[in-house]
Amino acid sequence: MAEAAYDPGNIFAKILRGEIPSHRVYEDDAVVAFMDVMPQGIGHTLVVPKAPSRNMLDADPAIFGPLFGVVQKVAVAVKKAFNADGVTLMQFNEPASGQTVYHLHVHVVPRFEGVPLKPHSGQMEKPEVLAENAGKIRAALAG
Amino acid sequence: MAEAAYDPGNIFAKILRGEIPSHRVYEDDAVVAFMDVMPQGIGHTLVVPKAPSRNMLDADPAIFGPLFGVVQKVAVAVKKAFNADGVTLMQFNEPASGQTVYHLHVHVVPRFEGVPLKPHSGQMEKPEVLAENAGKIRAALAG
Repeated sequence: MAEAAYDPGNIFAKILRGEIPSHRVYEDDAVVAFMDVMPQGIGHTLVVPKAPSRNMLDADPAIFGPLFGVVQKVAVAVKKAFNADGVTLMQFNEPASGQTVYHLHVHVVPRFEGVPLKPHSGQMEKPEVLAENAGKIRAALAG
Repeated sequence: MAEAAYDPGNIFAKILRGEIPSHRVYEDDAVVAFMDVMPQGIGHTLVVPKAPSRNMLDADPAIFGPLFGVVQKVAVAVKKAFNADGVTLMQFNEPASGQTVYHLHVHVVPRFEGVPLKPHSGQMEKPEVLAENAGKIRAALAG
């Protein structure tokens, strides 16, 4: 079955174009990282290629080196920023997998011993909390 | 805190060296893919770089292009092989994240509408089931 086509009106495309604000922690020519507004744990960050694709299934493989290079940088930074014990990466393809925004993104979630991942609740985090956490991650990326 | 060093005695290193059998679905110069023996769903496959690293945190970023190129190939193939509705990618770093084998690996799990991901139960799948599923994935990769 053919997948649906990429829709440039998706919310991450709007964030990439600056039409919707986000708490950015990293940007280069190919990749942007910003805070998930419905975090499954403190410091939950999304890493997003600028090139349009619906998810991993239809992405140009040429982006994977730059994309996962940034995923690594962000994973190391969130672990440091929040003194975490580990980091979980998740990437969802199509609704059956839990994908809700159809622009490729990688979830980077700091983890702590004995603390389960929170479910994807749809609960929005306070902007001031996201701003503070983004500042900690930017400092860790710079340090 | 410094992570533990890479241990070449881990089970995936033994699989890569051929000291332990596996149900392989793909191999190239840099990457191997084989069936997870404790699957969280039908067709659960692991994609593993040959280069040694404990996880994403200490990996050489030069491997990410080849590694995730194969992750994409395997994701597309398992979706086709099992007529799945979606695919979930997961990658765990350190025990707090659920990592149990300390050689970098990416979980590729076919997903079906309304079917939750099974927990990581520690239950071994029958070898004949793994062999049959590996055959379907190899056929999808070839086709």
